[in-house]
Amino acid sequence: MRSLISIKDLSREEVEALILEALKRKTLPPSPSFSGKVLASLFYENSTRTRESHERAASRLGMDGIGFSGTEGTSVKKGEPLADTLRMYEGYGADVVVLRHPLEGAARYAADILRIPVINAGDGANAHPTQTLLDLMTIKEKVGSIDNLRIALVGDLKYGRTVHSLVAGLSLFSNVQLWLVAPDAMQMPSHIVHDFEQATSSTVMRTANLQEDVDIFYMTRIQRERFPKGPDGEYEFQKLSRLYHVNAALLKDKKVGIMHPLPRYKHRLEIALDVDALPNAWYIGQARNGLFMREALLSLVLSGTQPEKEAHKTEEAWHPLPIKNGKKMGEHMVYRLDNGTLIDHIDAGKGSSVLAVLGMGDVPFIYARNIRSQRSGKKDVVGFTDRELKPDELNKIALVTSSATVNIIRDRSVYKKGKVVLPSVIDNIVFCQNPRCITYKEHAEHAPQKFHVMSHEPLVLRCHYCEVPIKREEIVLKEN
Amino acid sequence: MRSLISIKDLSREEVEALILEALKRKTLPPSPSFSGKVLASLFYENSTRTRESHERAASRLGMDGIGFSGTEGTSVKKGEPLADTLRMYEGYGADVVVLRHPLEGAARYAADILRIPVINAGDGANAHPTQTLLDLMTIKEKVGSIDNLRIALVGDLKYGRTVHSLVAGLSLFSNVQLWLVAPDAMQMPSHIVHDFEQATSSTVMRTANLQEDVDIFYMTRIQRERFPKGPDGEYEFQKLSRLYHVNAALLKDKKVGIMHPLPRYKHRLEIALDVDALPNAWYIGQARNGLFMREALLSLVLSGTQPEKEAHKTEEAWHPLPIKNGKKMGEHMVYRLDNGTLIDHIDAGKGSSVLAVLGMGDVPFIYARNIRSQRSGKKDVVGFTDRELKPDELNKIALVTSSATVNIIRDRSVYKKGKVVLPSVIDNIVFCQNPRCITYKEHAEHAPQKFHVMSHEPLVLRCHYCEVPIKREEIVLKEN
Amino acid sequence: MRSLISIKDLSREEVEALILEALKRKTLPPSPSFSGKVLASLFYENSTRTRESHERAASRLGMDGIGFSGTEGTSVKKGEPLADTLRMYEGYGADVVVLRHPLEGAARYAADILRIPVINAGDGANAHPTQTLLDLMTIKEKVGSIDNLRIALVGDLKYGRTVHSLVAGLSLFSNVQLWLVAPDAMQMPSHIVHDFEQATSSTVMRTANLQEDVDIFYMTRIQRERFPKGPDGEYEFQKLSRLYHVNAALLKDKKVGIMHPLPRYKHRLEIALDVDALPNAWYIGQARNGLFMREALLSLVLSGTQPEKEAHKTEEAWHPLPIKNGKKMGEHMVYRLDNGTLIDHIDAGKGSSVLAVLGMGDVPFIYARNIRSQRSGKKDVVGFTDRELKPDELNKIALVTSSATVNIIRDRSVYKKGKVVLPSVIDNIVFCQNPRCITYKEHAEHAPQKFHVMSHEPLVLRCHYCEVPIKREEIVLKEN
Repeated sequence: MRSLISIKDLSREEVEALILEALKRKTLPPSPSFSGKVLASLFYENSTRTRESHERAASRLGMDGIGFSGTEGTSVKKGEPLADTLRMYEGYGADVVVLRHPLEGAARYAADILRIPVINAGDGANAHPTQTLLDLMTIKEKVGSIDNLRIALVGDLKYGRTVHSLVAGLSLFSNVQLWLVAPDAMQMPSHIVHDFEQATSSTVMRTANLQEDVDIFYMTRIQRERFPKGPDGEYEFQKLSRLYHVNAALLKDKKVGIMHPLPRYKHRLEIALDVDALPNAWYIGQARNGLFMREALLSLVLSGTQPEKEAHKTEEAWHPLPIKNGKKMGEHMVYRLDNGTLIDHIDAGKGSSVLAVLGMGDVPFIYARNIRSQRSGKKDVVGFTDRELKPDELNKIALVTSSATVNIIRDRSVYKKGKVVLPSVIDNIVFCQNPRCITYKEHAEHAPQKFHVMSHEPLVLRCHYCEVPIKREEIVLKEN
Repeated sequence: MRSLISIKDLSREEVEALILEALKRKTLPPSPSFSGKVLASLFYENSTRTRESHERAASRLGMDGIGFSGTEGTSVKKGEPLADTLRMYEGYGADVVVLRHPLEGAARYAADILRIPVINAGDGANAHPTQTLLDLMTIKEKVGSIDNLRIALVGDLKYGRTVHSLVAGLSLFSNVQLWLVAPDAMQMPSHIVHDFEQATSSTVMRTANLQEDVDIFYMTRIQRERFPKGPDGEYEFQKLSRLYHVNAALLKDKKVGIMHPLPRYKHRLEIALDVDALPNAWYIGQARNGLFMREALLSLVLSGTQPEKEAHKTEEAWHPLPIKNGKKMGEHMVYRLDNGTLIDHIDAGKGSSVLAVLGMGDVPFIYARNIRSQRSGKKDVVGFTDRELKPDELNKIALVTSSATVNIIRDRSVYKKGKVVLPSVIDNIVFCQNPRCITYKEHAEHAPQKFHVMSHEPLVLRCHYCEVPIKREEIVLKEN
Repeated sequence: MRSLISIKDLSREEVEALILEALKRKTLPPSPSFSGKVLASLFYENSTRTRESHERAASRLGMDGIGFSGTEGTSVKKGEPLADTLRMYEGYGADVVVLRHPLEGAARYAADILRIPVINAGDGANAHPTQTLLDLMTIKEKVGSIDNLRIALVGDLKYGRTVHSLVAGLSLFSNVQLWLVAPDAMQMPSHIVHDFEQATSSTVMRTANLQEDVDIFYMTRIQRERFPKGPDGEYEFQKLSRLYHVNAALLKDKKVGIMHPLPRYKHRLEIALDVDALPNAWYIGQARNGLFMREALLSLVLSGTQPEKEAHKTEEAWHPLPIKNGKKMGEHMVYRLDNGTLIDHIDAGKGSSVLAVLGMGDVPFIYARNIRSQRSGKKDVVGFTDRELKPDELNKIALVTSSATVNIIRDRSVYKKGKVVLPSVIDNIVFCQNPRCITYKEHAEHAPQKFHVMSHEPLVLRCHYCEVPIKREEIVLKEN
């Protein structure tokens, strides 16, 4: 493995191998097998457990450490681009980077631009894969298996990256029953639930009441900072943060294990202190497991061979079609096209969008809207002279209309004809609309735009960085 | 030794052994005799000397370090209970914790809940034992002996934990004459002075003028933050911080040694810079001694065997009395008691308090006030049916009245009779009223309430954590 | 070499030796040749590159580290004098100090009071010699030689200490052509330019337009904090920070190398990200070179023998003159001087200044103004009884008048006669007027006043600490 950015990058086998390795290391004395190697731990946000356990694990492996905790006293405060800071640490001899960053996709971005491995220690509300690994390790340790598990995730499921990653991690195992216990305002983003249900073909249960007939309560802290400032926000916070509370009385004679990514909130104590002494209290051992899991992870990425970054191959932006009686082309149009491009079979009404994304400027064009089509009842047709289309323009067309046929016309007959095809990766023409995404303009990190096509009908793209999906109607294209 | 929480935990012999060890290490090159061991230095408050000298000492011993300095960038900022943070560091393999915390009693609390040793690096205004050890080391080094010493403590004696601990430390030695040089507003808390005078049966001299005929001036910095914000506080600070000032002119031809825990305040310089070059300037060597004392201390606690925490034995809450002609019982009362409890010989007028702490609810009771008593002239008597008393209820009674006899009555005769006895440790029924105590409710650290009985007549309790004493009339009991 | 405070402390040979050593280390694996030695890195201001590269370099040399980054959580916040903090780290066993401080001259002050070597990692707007060394190393590496270089320094040349040091560094090499590209408000202080022109006898070109026909653009970040708060400052900043911008288009087919001390400002990007991929982008390798240069530097100062601080010898404050017919003395004066001092040949009109700096109090004096002089047309003469002059008084006279003859008169005749001479070092009688100087009173660092005489006619002094020069008319003398 090169880097660990998202738990989705791992197979069930890889996860299980890591758990076994971590459990083994838990029983052994530390061995400085990576002495001389350097860990750069770059924490742009508060953390204690995640940072200390990574640094402690590195030190058990004999590694040196550099980096910072919080951006006070760093050039980040001077507005340095993340990319520059990362390259600096690579330049100073870091062998691996552990990154926590408030922007979603920051770790993916780091892995894309660095030659050394990157471990995501939490990027905004997106992912926290090392937490998920230690969570799964704890379950394996306590229950013996992760399959056939009944688990209730409780509290802030909307912003809590730990539960987002955990759900993705659990989707690797079989017959996991999931209860999402949260008020509507704090429920889990639907695309995360959707991914889980697709992967497991099981149904997730959403509820506002603490589901008790399960193997595990996974409690989370409801964070004040998620609510608006001022009295209204305070009122909302007070109300919601009181909703879910586990104590010794509630757990009396129950086998259910209590997990928590920690810290818990001392003024509200979603888990009462009287639970700490009970066998149900898994959360203390859970935190400790983080040390050994991170040790296992570091030794894995450091042993791993660094694959060459594969050059991003440009895909054919259209699929050629046979030309039959090209002469007839354009005959039925009001205006006859001698030389230029004619785009046929555009979804009815989408012609104007096609013209918009192409940015015609002064180029003369025709636009036939809602005309009859043998194939699909109605269609739009667009034509213009003296201009042929570049690959990224063909991509843009494919993004606004599900079907389109492009005819290159020379001397009044079709010289070339084809269907636009959507490539599997969309580069630099679609904006991610997630304001916490590393690519979002206001953050001035200048990360490139990149989307993966998840499905064609209906069209769903997913941001390469923050992993938030968008549908065709949500797409915002760069202007020409 | 297991932990070092208060200088009071040490005997004179232990202190002298530490000083000898530290002085020895001062002459030797460092030896990594604890290589692989881990120091967790947890500084919840500003510090440079104390933190750096502990960490440097650990590194001279070959130890690794984890922890934080200031709570920026830690989960403390997220409202994590101190107990959780401490257990996390223990879980990550810390072998010893050095703790500085703004709440008084924090270090004692840490030592109570952790299995590893704890060194108190300063808890609020309470104690700073490692500072005292290096202070005494410096005196021993400069004077040759700590007995028969004449020392003036100068400046902020009210909030300065260094002087509080120093006074306790000096009380271990013989014939130490102590001058407390401070304005009334900054004088030393009387219970600290009282402890010293009791231990040494010598009298402390309080004065507002710099006493010059002594062996040592122990100067302290007057801290702006101790005064109210705004102009009035500023005025007070300016006035008091100008009071005590030592310079070369004042010291001309004087042998007196100048000590200071440092830092001194550059805008006021309680010790002028022209003193630095004089033989009187002990404070520079004093700071350096901290390195070797902490090295000696760390090696001591790490070599120490960890004694099992002794299970807190519950003491008999009453002392049985012989029953003579139990039949007569209750005859002289207006109301005859068939079954229940009769509490006799309550201090006159305290009966209502007894009823209050017992929280009678709907239980029918009688209350005879100021009635004649063979024994003590006047007394109160209280009786009620259908209820016998639990041990903590007996303790509460002992806390509100100096004397009381409890009679358990069955079938109109005394079945059991006894005197309430105050246990040496009072658990969870008395609140500490020191707002800076770790047990104070508002801090939400959920530390249990615990007091030690220092004397019975008059009754004096001392908080197990912040060490602040309270008298019978100051006691605040938990409601039933 | 003992310490590195200013690039001016180095000869061309020393700089070249350091560059060769650094380039060698760049090709070799790290060797812990200074294991057990301790680096104290004391960063009173934001830094990432400078701090990390020093600490990483130390760790490659096997050294331990202590210190702080930013003054949060340190006793600096409690108003500790810099001198005390420095001595503490020396006391705790530091073998070398790396210091970044906002006050100019802080590093020189540190080197003066410590026995261990000091490396200046930036003192206010004054100097940043290690940056200059890595800059020159990068030029040597890329161009092969630093002589015959054409270089344009671009952006904030007024406050940027990196460019101030770089200009001083370049002055060691031959035939370096320098363009200073900045708006007037941000142009380089004239004394720095003057020093360069004197050392190289070449002329510096000031321009507001980006000079393109050069070998190197040395870009700098324009810092918001240099402008006043509020909208006006913001407007100015926005305007100036847009002035200079380098991107791939501008560099097309150009060989010019782009350097930058970094960080660049992500919201303005004086160097566009599309430059990073070009061969012109030297700034990334430049930053990395810092690691090896600092490694070379640390090993040099640690290997260096510590010369004894030479006791500052007091120079003769006057130059004796032969006495001819002393009897005539004072005859032509209105008032006859029997015993005392007569100061003759004072620059015409400067007599009052002479009296002022001597602070005559009640001593009776005479003052003859603009009287005829054989030597210089006009002169002032001052005389007083019953007082002879101390050396520092003679110095003061030399500071306010270019020429003066002092006659000590006893029994109406000249007993001793001489010319006042200005010593090469002026101690404690002249105030530095640079408000960012370590000696400036408001900072309460209590550093002594010290100036070097750079030239006599016209008189130019230079502050020993902040290196800012002052002319005779700018001199502010301490009152007697």
